[in-house]
Amino acid sequence: MTVRAAVAGASGYAGGELLRLLLAHPEVEIGALTANSNAGQKLGALQPHLLPLADRVLEETGPEALAGHDVVFLALPHGRSAAVAEQLGPDVLVVDMGADFRLSDAADWERFYGSPHAGTWPYGLPELPGARAALEGSKRIAVPGCYPTAVSLALFPAYAARLAEPEAVVVAASGTSGAGRTPKPHLLGSEVMGSMSPYGVGGVHRHTPEMVQNLSAVAGERVSVSFTPTLAPMPRGILATCSAKARDGVTAESLRAAYDKALADEPFVHLLPEGRWPATASVHGSNAVQVQVAHDEAVGRIIAISAIDNLTKGTAGGAVQSMNIALGLDETTGLTTIGVAP
Amino acid sequence: MTVRAAVAGASGYAGGELLRLLLAHPEVEIGALTANSNAGQKLGALQPHLLPLADRVLEETGPEALAGHDVVFLALPHGRSAAVAEQLGPDVLVVDMGADFRLSDAADWERFYGSPHAGTWPYGLPELPGARAALEGSKRIAVPGCYPTAVSLALFPAYAARLAEPEAVVVAASGTSGAGRTPKPHLLGSEVMGSMSPYGVGGVHRHTPEMVQNLSAVAGERVSVSFTPTLAPMPRGILATCSAKARDGVTAESLRAAYDKALADEPFVHLLPEGRWPATASVHGSNAVQVQVAHDEAVGRIIAISAIDNLTKGTAGGAVQSMNIALGLDETTGLTTIGVAP
Amino acid sequence: MTVRAAVAGASGYAGGELLRLLLAHPEVEIGALTANSNAGQKLGALQPHLLPLADRVLEETGPEALAGHDVVFLALPHGRSAAVAEQLGPDVLVVDMGADFRLSDAADWERFYGSPHAGTWPYGLPELPGARAALEGSKRIAVPGCYPTAVSLALFPAYAARLAEPEAVVVAASGTSGAGRTPKPHLLGSEVMGSMSPYGVGGVHRHTPEMVQNLSAVAGERVSVSFTPTLAPMPRGILATCSAKARDGVTAESLRAAYDKALADEPFVHLLPEGRWPATASVHGSNAVQVQVAHDEAVGRIIAISAIDNLTKGTAGGAVQSMNIALGLDETTGLTTIGVAP
Amino acid sequence: MTVRAAVAGASGYAGGELLRLLLAHPEVEIGALTANSNAGQKLGALQPHLLPLADRVLEETGPEALAGHDVVFLALPHGRSAAVAEQLGPDVLVVDMGADFRLSDAADWERFYGSPHAGTWPYGLPELPGARAALEGSKRIAVPGCYPTAVSLALFPAYAARLAEPEAVVVAASGTSGAGRTPKPHLLGSEVMGSMSPYGVGGVHRHTPEMVQNLSAVAGERVSVSFTPTLAPMPRGILATCSAKARDGVTAESLRAAYDKALADEPFVHLLPEGRWPATASVHGSNAVQVQVAHDEAVGRIIAISAIDNLTKGTAGGAVQSMNIALGLDETTGLTTIGVAP
Repeated sequence: MTVRAAVAGASGYAGGELLRLLLAHPEVEIGALTANSNAGQKLGALQPHLLPLADRVLEETGPEALAGHDVVFLALPHGRSAAVAEQLGPDVLVVDMGADFRLSDAADWERFYGSPHAGTWPYGLPELPGARAALEGSKRIAVPGCYPTAVSLALFPAYAARLAEPEAVVVAASGTSGAGRTPKPHLLGSEVMGSMSPYGVGGVHRHTPEMVQNLSAVAGERVSVSFTPTLAPMPRGILATCSAKARDGVTAESLRAAYDKALADEPFVHLLPEGRWPATASVHGSNAVQVQVAHDEAVGRIIAISAIDNLTKGTAGGAVQSMNIALGLDETTGLTTIGVAP
Repeated sequence: MTVRAAVAGASGYAGGELLRLLLAHPEVEIGALTANSNAGQKLGALQPHLLPLADRVLEETGPEALAGHDVVFLALPHGRSAAVAEQLGPDVLVVDMGADFRLSDAADWERFYGSPHAGTWPYGLPELPGARAALEGSKRIAVPGCYPTAVSLALFPAYAARLAEPEAVVVAASGTSGAGRTPKPHLLGSEVMGSMSPYGVGGVHRHTPEMVQNLSAVAGERVSVSFTPTLAPMPRGILATCSAKARDGVTAESLRAAYDKALADEPFVHLLPEGRWPATASVHGSNAVQVQVAHDEAVGRIIAISAIDNLTKGTAGGAVQSMNIALGLDETTGLTTIGVAP
Repeated sequence: MTVRAAVAGASGYAGGELLRLLLAHPEVEIGALTANSNAGQKLGALQPHLLPLADRVLEETGPEALAGHDVVFLALPHGRSAAVAEQLGPDVLVVDMGADFRLSDAADWERFYGSPHAGTWPYGLPELPGARAALEGSKRIAVPGCYPTAVSLALFPAYAARLAEPEAVVVAASGTSGAGRTPKPHLLGSEVMGSMSPYGVGGVHRHTPEMVQNLSAVAGERVSVSFTPTLAPMPRGILATCSAKARDGVTAESLRAAYDKALADEPFVHLLPEGRWPATASVHGSNAVQVQVAHDEAVGRIIAISAIDNLTKGTAGGAVQSMNIALGLDETTGLTTIGVAP
Repeated sequence: MTVRAAVAGASGYAGGELLRLLLAHPEVEIGALTANSNAGQKLGALQPHLLPLADRVLEETGPEALAGHDVVFLALPHGRSAAVAEQLGPDVLVVDMGADFRLSDAADWERFYGSPHAGTWPYGLPELPGARAALEGSKRIAVPGCYPTAVSLALFPAYAARLAEPEAVVVAASGTSGAGRTPKPHLLGSEVMGSMSPYGVGGVHRHTPEMVQNLSAVAGERVSVSFTPTLAPMPRGILATCSAKARDGVTAESLRAAYDKALADEPFVHLLPEGRWPATASVHGSNAVQVQVAHDEAVGRIIAISAIDNLTKGTAGGAVQSMNIALGLDETTGLTTIGVAP
């Protein structure tokens, strides 16, 4: 099978990472590349690391450029995906790397994004219970946010096994590429190097309801999430430190057994051996997720920590993984669990 | 007043930072500088940023070198301070930058440090209720750990005002200098740049009982602390993200009022204006502490975040601040609230 | 003596660094702070590390705000300084941190800056032969560029002693703050972290004629400079690697003697002991310059390397040093040779 | 064809990178992995990014472990390769990633390495004139040093076309992984982050004679190289800034034509379009080389700049590329020109 794939939003970080992965995908032929303000430029000027595509010219995002493909990836600003998807018709696989179709609760969407809810598409986090079945054969995929990917994969085994109380506390550190490529003063290298700083504190980050949605579905009850994102002085990577009160009777052994069971067959999520902890460098450029868990008896809490590459498993790699499932390919096609380190 | 100060352990990061500050202190004359394996070397080979002391030769740590000073700072490995302090006599001000005299609970000490408890000295975090009085005129000072400094200053106003439930959850990111200068594989630049990773997870980090001690004293009841430290790709700085359930009736206004009240007169701890959040870069090389607080109503938690320089306010600056109080000097003498940024 | 100083351009990196230094200057009272697009904002929102000035409001740059000061520092875009200086009158000390008055050759100015030459002011690199005399009592100072500061101090002893052929080759690495605070895509943290890249290659960087001017004056003949700047993944610092063919008869001893002689009495420029090499971290936040020199006999070249903090000695510290001389103060007043490391 | 490959020295950075590449090589099956002090450990504890090999146990380096392979890669300390190679016999392809067999001049070897010269093997930089022919079918390969790779590829087109005078001046910045994984104080993250510093100044770096050898062979006359390496605050990458006087009559056009001609058919070396300059981030994790060249008429010099990943093209990727040629495979098998950026 060869599928022809277009990428709308090829000049940003998510689009660039997606192209890096599609170039290594044996079943994908890269079709149209589109952009908005950068339309007309050669890709080599914007994504100098993608040497084989250096001479490809970016087209204007729109139905002309995107027509005639089997798969269209959308890496667009929030609120733009619905209109583009409609123009593409129901037979094209549309993979939305934006937020538009992630949330099932319209009120949540409107409160956090301030615009009308566009709908809900099958959610591209295959590791969650039931997710793979929803993705198989689907023509629409909502790729999860980078933080919800890291947090959901760290905590869902605890909630699936009913080991954790439904109040999670999450502090996550992200590399700066998660903030995108639009130049802003606080994202200058001079500002971020040597500095850690929080943002979106107090429950206002848009990824919060997505975490609540995922964990609540697994837990079978509403799970609240206190989420604090922080910006770390590195280009890539998310380290999510997640905790919740342990239910009565939880032990280090029962906890580890639950994680072993939930993750044993996952090709990309790796429960580390005891005594070793995740590091974002180990998953740099890889679709792998490192997870480790501890039971702090003194305080009665479960601490689950995950490391992902925010651009790979957190965005573009997750998108390719879900595309593979939707197309009936092996889920791991074109993806690697090998990081680029040191 | 001119006090003559010796520094035992002048070749490490804490000793180097202390010397940087003492060089700028108008009432201090720098006396003996001692080391262990580096004794005999010129300081310029080890601390090339301390130009005015480049030709000073490190002596062997011991009573000969340390005698004849008004103040002796100890930056020694854990367990060594008691013997040295005893030799110095009761009239010399001894400021221990190690952990030996921080904990009042001998069982806690033994569990976390694995050696007999040496005792408890007045605790050098002047901002805590009652701390200044204990430091005034004291001849012994136990300088707090870097993490307990950041965490205690972020959370004590909430506990002092009885706004928070006694179960704190803390995730803190530290620059690598906090791990010291002894070369270890995981501290190589190749390993830490571009990586975030946790360590000491699950309640085993030695600074945990110190946080519990501080917050419990303020709260008037035992406060548990779930503490997860992470290593961040930067040389200096701690960002501490702390949270606890809000007690009934807490509002954003009552929370802010409590912080305003607790911190208003503090020369080094600065509650940021609403809408701005701490960043470690802003306190780089400074004794200032940036604090901000939020009330996440959706989850009923207080989120308090602080940024410090782990070597300055977190170690050597805190030591100088407490020395000033002990000697009857103005508390801010020789210290700055101005960071080196960007 | 207390001088009242205004800073035009207080919201940028040069202005921020200058304020950091002026806050520590015992003879300076900080007056008006002005800006252009940021006028009306509090300084605390833009320079959060300058805690004592957090509530100062930025005024519009212009004669109203700048009148009534003894010293006015200009940190303005190129081409703006002449008009402002004229309005201030001849009795005010005007210290231009821009390029406008650095070059004596009008043709050089016009070729590299593309605008009419505004004139030449006494050049604020006191270490160059004759520079101090020109600065004493002057009411106008042209602060050197950051790269010319590093390069001139590394090479002038060799040219002063007639040891080097008049063709210098310079490759310098600068931290990103040298590129300023205006957000541009290539200055994003995501782009600069983990990357080294050159720019302005082939003799087109504007600091090139300034290096030629300085070294030629010292050498007594025209010295050409091949200059390649590179952007390094750090916020501050310049490391300048400079070389030139050694004249006949040069030895390692004669070379070192020449540097010893030229630099022995300099308060800020430090020739390192043999076997040690400069590092930008050692001069972080300091006005010190580290210099080392080698004679590579196999190729017959002199290699001179310097490290400075581009914002301190390279800009704001150099400005304060020259101001001190102009005002008759001790040259080192308010400045330090102690770096903030690690 | 499937070749079975052993890696001696699998616990270091070069060995780890080689394994990363071999895992992606369609014709290679990974056999024995050996180490010295780390023998007996699982690879997952040392190279946590190589998930598929996490449970492989490191064996002791020696003939037992290394026997029975088609290819043996040696990533050993200098001076150890000859003895191991002898034990393996003449029919095994031995690829030495150390320095032992790079230099043809025994006196150069002895002067720079201080031990007896072991011999000379075909040199694994296929892009140099004549190199491919020497590698085809060879059973021994000497992989070049990382700096000589970057410098030779930047300058050889100029020397091949007789455009440059035989005195090159090179300043190169390397990421810290080039210094290896053995913990040393100056390689700590606390020391390298935020700092640029030179080392091996004055012609003493061991890679110098290798550059001289390569460029002299191309030029047909002895080329001297003034080489200054610097350590940059990033884990990977080399940026080599190289220059030499232009011969009479050289123009920007003739220069570009020479580079176009020399590099046009190279699969991994890419002459950038005019106006764009190399960046190490663009080749992160890739075997690509970015090259750009300028003619500075004012000083009569050619400036040639290259960017490589020191671990990939500079070490392990270069080794695989040469192995491919030796085995008769397509030279690009298992290698990519796509970087991991940002």
